[in-house]
Amino acid sequence: MEISLTTGKKIPCPPGSSILESLKQAGIFLTSSCGGKGTCGKCKVIIKSGRAVSKSRLKLSHEEIGSGYVLACRTYPETDLLIDVPKESMLVVEGKVVTGKSKDLQELLRSTGAAMKPLTERTVLHLPPPTLDDNISDLERLRRGLLSRGMACLRVPFRFMPGLAKTMRKKDWEITLCTIHTEDCEEIIRIASGNRKSPRYGVAVDIGTTTIVVFLVDLTNGELVDIASTYNSQIRYGDDVITRIVHATEHNKLKELNGAVISDINNLLSIIRKTHHIDIESLDCFVVAGNTTMTHLFLGLDPSAIREEPYIPTANTFPLAFAGELDIRVNPDIPIYAFPCVASYVGGDIVSGVLATQLHKKHELSIFIDIGTNGEIVIGNSEWLVSAACSAGPCFEGSGIKCGMRATDGAVEGVKIDRETLDVEIKVIGDADTKPTGICGSGMIDAVAEMFLTGIIDQKGKLQKDVSGRVRDGGDGLEFVVYSGDAERADIVLAEPDIENIVRAKAAIYAGFSTILNEVGLTFNDVQKVYIAGGFGKFLDIEKAIMLGMLPELPKERFEYMGNTSVTGAYLCLLSRKLREEAEEVAKKMTYLELSVSRSFMNEYVSGLFIPHTDIDAFPGVKKLMER
Amino acid sequence: MEISLTTGKKIPCPPGSSILESLKQAGIFLTSSCGGKGTCGKCKVIIKSGRAVSKSRLKLSHEEIGSGYVLACRTYPETDLLIDVPKESMLVVEGKVVTGKSKDLQELLRSTGAAMKPLTERTVLHLPPPTLDDNISDLERLRRGLLSRGMACLRVPFRFMPGLAKTMRKKDWEITLCTIHTEDCEEIIRIASGNRKSPRYGVAVDIGTTTIVVFLVDLTNGELVDIASTYNSQIRYGDDVITRIVHATEHNKLKELNGAVISDINNLLSIIRKTHHIDIESLDCFVVAGNTTMTHLFLGLDPSAIREEPYIPTANTFPLAFAGELDIRVNPDIPIYAFPCVASYVGGDIVSGVLATQLHKKHELSIFIDIGTNGEIVIGNSEWLVSAACSAGPCFEGSGIKCGMRATDGAVEGVKIDRETLDVEIKVIGDADTKPTGICGSGMIDAVAEMFLTGIIDQKGKLQKDVSGRVRDGGDGLEFVVYSGDAERADIVLAEPDIENIVRAKAAIYAGFSTILNEVGLTFNDVQKVYIAGGFGKFLDIEKAIMLGMLPELPKERFEYMGNTSVTGAYLCLLSRKLREEAEEVAKKMTYLELSVSRSFMNEYVSGLFIPHTDIDAFPGVKKLMER
Repeated sequence: MEISLTTGKKIPCPPGSSILESLKQAGIFLTSSCGGKGTCGKCKVIIKSGRAVSKSRLKLSHEEIGSGYVLACRTYPETDLLIDVPKESMLVVEGKVVTGKSKDLQELLRSTGAAMKPLTERTVLHLPPPTLDDNISDLERLRRGLLSRGMACLRVPFRFMPGLAKTMRKKDWEITLCTIHTEDCEEIIRIASGNRKSPRYGVAVDIGTTTIVVFLVDLTNGELVDIASTYNSQIRYGDDVITRIVHATEHNKLKELNGAVISDINNLLSIIRKTHHIDIESLDCFVVAGNTTMTHLFLGLDPSAIREEPYIPTANTFPLAFAGELDIRVNPDIPIYAFPCVASYVGGDIVSGVLATQLHKKHELSIFIDIGTNGEIVIGNSEWLVSAACSAGPCFEGSGIKCGMRATDGAVEGVKIDRETLDVEIKVIGDADTKPTGICGSGMIDAVAEMFLTGIIDQKGKLQKDVSGRVRDGGDGLEFVVYSGDAERADIVLAEPDIENIVRAKAAIYAGFSTILNEVGLTFNDVQKVYIAGGFGKFLDIEKAIMLGMLPELPKERFEYMGNTSVTGAYLCLLSRKLREEAEEVAKKMTYLELSVSRSFMNEYVSGLFIPHTDIDAFPGVKKLMER
Repeated sequence: MEISLTTGKKIPCPPGSSILESLKQAGIFLTSSCGGKGTCGKCKVIIKSGRAVSKSRLKLSHEEIGSGYVLACRTYPETDLLIDVPKESMLVVEGKVVTGKSKDLQELLRSTGAAMKPLTERTVLHLPPPTLDDNISDLERLRRGLLSRGMACLRVPFRFMPGLAKTMRKKDWEITLCTIHTEDCEEIIRIASGNRKSPRYGVAVDIGTTTIVVFLVDLTNGELVDIASTYNSQIRYGDDVITRIVHATEHNKLKELNGAVISDINNLLSIIRKTHHIDIESLDCFVVAGNTTMTHLFLGLDPSAIREEPYIPTANTFPLAFAGELDIRVNPDIPIYAFPCVASYVGGDIVSGVLATQLHKKHELSIFIDIGTNGEIVIGNSEWLVSAACSAGPCFEGSGIKCGMRATDGAVEGVKIDRETLDVEIKVIGDADTKPTGICGSGMIDAVAEMFLTGIIDQKGKLQKDVSGRVRDGGDGLEFVVYSGDAERADIVLAEPDIENIVRAKAAIYAGFSTILNEVGLTFNDVQKVYIAGGFGKFLDIEKAIMLGMLPELPKERFEYMGNTSVTGAYLCLLSRKLREEAEEVAKKMTYLELSVSRSFMNEYVSGLFIPHTDIDAFPGVKKLMER
């Protein structure tokens, strides 16, 4: 069967597949916070013609049902369909997720003290044409020219040879040579068209499990020319790394997963190139950061052993790849540097994050945490670094939360509950008149912390029925109404299972911190700085996160919210050889602690399942507040 | 139109093409010493049915004409034809052209003092399987294993990565790793199937302008397992390097020329593999030697600038290529080492030849000359090496000589003329009852020297009509009957233009020697050793070559006839790292003298157009003989 969209697009619908699944397969992603269980009501589509069976109509109003609205996740076509996908059902990736603007990034690079040495260099050579008295070969002529520029060690890949004679003559012996520094040698990449003044760009990529972010960077001055991002279309094969590894392994479909991320990157590139009229010849190099599984899938490496004890990746440091080897649609000789990883569950995105914080060069003890689809922690300083993955799960990205969503327009990103009246005040991402459509990570943290402080939930996160009128029976248990909808919009609620999810996540994060600190014989009091990265958007209320027991109770000035540090680190490595070397060192010297088999972590985790914590004395400020 | 062969094969015949050309295009090569001019009468075929126009019937008997014989080079089909190609018209490549047998080669390798270190090595590793306590990545595990074997520096190409995880597990952590030593590092090639005891082979290839020779070598002990050779099927695009470069350049058909030699090598490999039941997995590496143009065409490099002043090759030393990059049909990761060249007209075959003679390690002054389709000379010792190409032309391979042929079965390889009776005695390659079909290089040298000594030709090479009854008018000038044919076989003659050709060739060779020696301020008396390589077959009469004035008059024991030194040198480099390094050094330190623009060479050449030489005092022995 076939589903036609009102946009004109036609997609196949395999027998037994829901509309949601069919759209996913075709690369059309709908908002679906409940994961296709028919409970969040976000994946609404309108059937214009054709016949289909809907197994649930939860969250649909009578008017909607009358107008042909169905839940895509629970609706199965019986004939060919014509459907309309309302704009609000489409999954939107935030346009500008990332930390800073161009100026901030350039300032960050300067502040590291590293000289600007992009991944690839261009050298313009004016070679003397050959004569009978100077009849060395073309390659020797090139070598001699480079030697006079101080490049004594030169590595020449065979693929560079076939075009050489023609190109050198066509360019009349004025050659713009792209090289890359590897293993104390310059390796020739290609002869670029253009001259000394031609523009040249590099691309920094963060491959997240959920989102892919691309920076286009001017290699001559480090300017951030543009940002593009999209959902990682591997989502169609599963939401988290584990289901994707299963797909790659059990379905033998590594190629599909690899192709998905490659085509995402190709699409983003093509959009950016069009916008800025960028010639393919001026794209010189790529730096890619991602977690270990994402890096494997991007490079086409088999990830199966990552999933099973003892959790082994194919590699943690990756040989330089070339665009042609990965089907990235630029000049096939363009090099692609993949960030080194530490272990199966602490990847290049974390090494990149450490690089962005520069904590590895500071004397003071720091914590770095990246809360994304997973939660990874690094603790250390210029002497040592210990890392761990704490399996916090993707709830702060909206996954597994009834009304959860990512930090995009329409997300409740802040929640305040009045201590007296218990009135709720919310902050929504977007314009002044943007209506809330769900709740994102920072909103959840706020809400749960405030609910706890006002007694709406107890220390275990259980909703108290009689405290607030906003606590109601949601059909499958109690829920708290964060925002009351109207005829057009559904209520935004946090149900008891949602709160349990959030509490488990924060417990895992805090237990991660404690376990590592215990392991190295230190305490939270020794920590001078806490860097927080992740997809919380622009806003994260540190106090609330402490109140919840997710972050340790330390003076507020010790915390710094960093945004997407993975792409920031990739930006830095694109522009600096010294920082690339630092990244390799960071990855090499970072110790990895496997928490999933740690008894100490399990104990800490169980203690963290209370708000803020079983050991309330670790949170004296919160304790004081509770006593008020 | 189409030509059918009685063998069943059908080939296209483009309008205006002769039968010879059409057969050439289809890779069927006929003997054609005159180069398709209709004068040698060697390319006979029998038309069984169909109509064709013959523009010449020279050398055909009435009986033959009656039986449908035509000259393929001068016959143009008017309708589809059915033809029979008699066995004697087929071009035959000698089965075993090459110097030595396996034992000689192994002895030669031993005599160089170089340890056996094949181009690629295999290392068998028994790695401990990963555990939670030993959870480094697969690549790190491999590195650690190699480190314990002393391989500290390891280069890993990206293409090695994708299969790694699966292979290591499939092989249960017992890995046979192929590596190659490059730039002071071991570079990983692949994981081989098999274990410590599995056979492994290397291939040494000589790509001659006319002939391709392949050695299959057992890398465990240096045994020469088999030899195969074939005509270089680039012949269909021209006989010499210049016409091939023109074809590659003007017709933009580099790909065709490249494809021709690659498919020749693939065919030889496939035959050898079948004969010896050799699994593709056990083929580990290739070493290829050829002149500069052949090397360029083999590697797919543009040769156009080689042809035009100032004669510039793309490269003289070549980056390692891999079988997959060249479409050689073995494992695509197999490395292919191409011999370094010196200049456009002194190639890897000459460097390989020097290596085979080891003259670059000897204190004594030596000459090395390789007479093939061209003539290249090296003079030097352990201190210095000077080389030149003397444009001798391919006459000693039979080209441009009326009855000329290569040193294969049926070739007159020795000629003796009785001083008194002027009776002619000939020696023919083949069985006792092999009938002569032409004359090869050594036979030509003998014949012209003997004709000179007996006064049949004068010092200028002019035939003297009244001296011998064997001198006759051949229709287009005088000719000497070397062998009188019968009803079935044509006479074998040397015509005046043939003799001129031979004299020009010997003059160029001798002038090459003198010019280089003059250049370095030495004389022939300083020369302790003369190594002669080339396609003369098993036999070359040094005395006759001196008498002719091709070789300098030195004591006979100073000459050594070496056969095909190009493939011998390739064999040596396949097996020894030290000798590969020596080859690089030889190529680097060898000076190249461009004779084509040398006034001194022109003078020497003109002086050499007499037999033995204008300066008869340089040949006291010959002078004495002449006086008798």
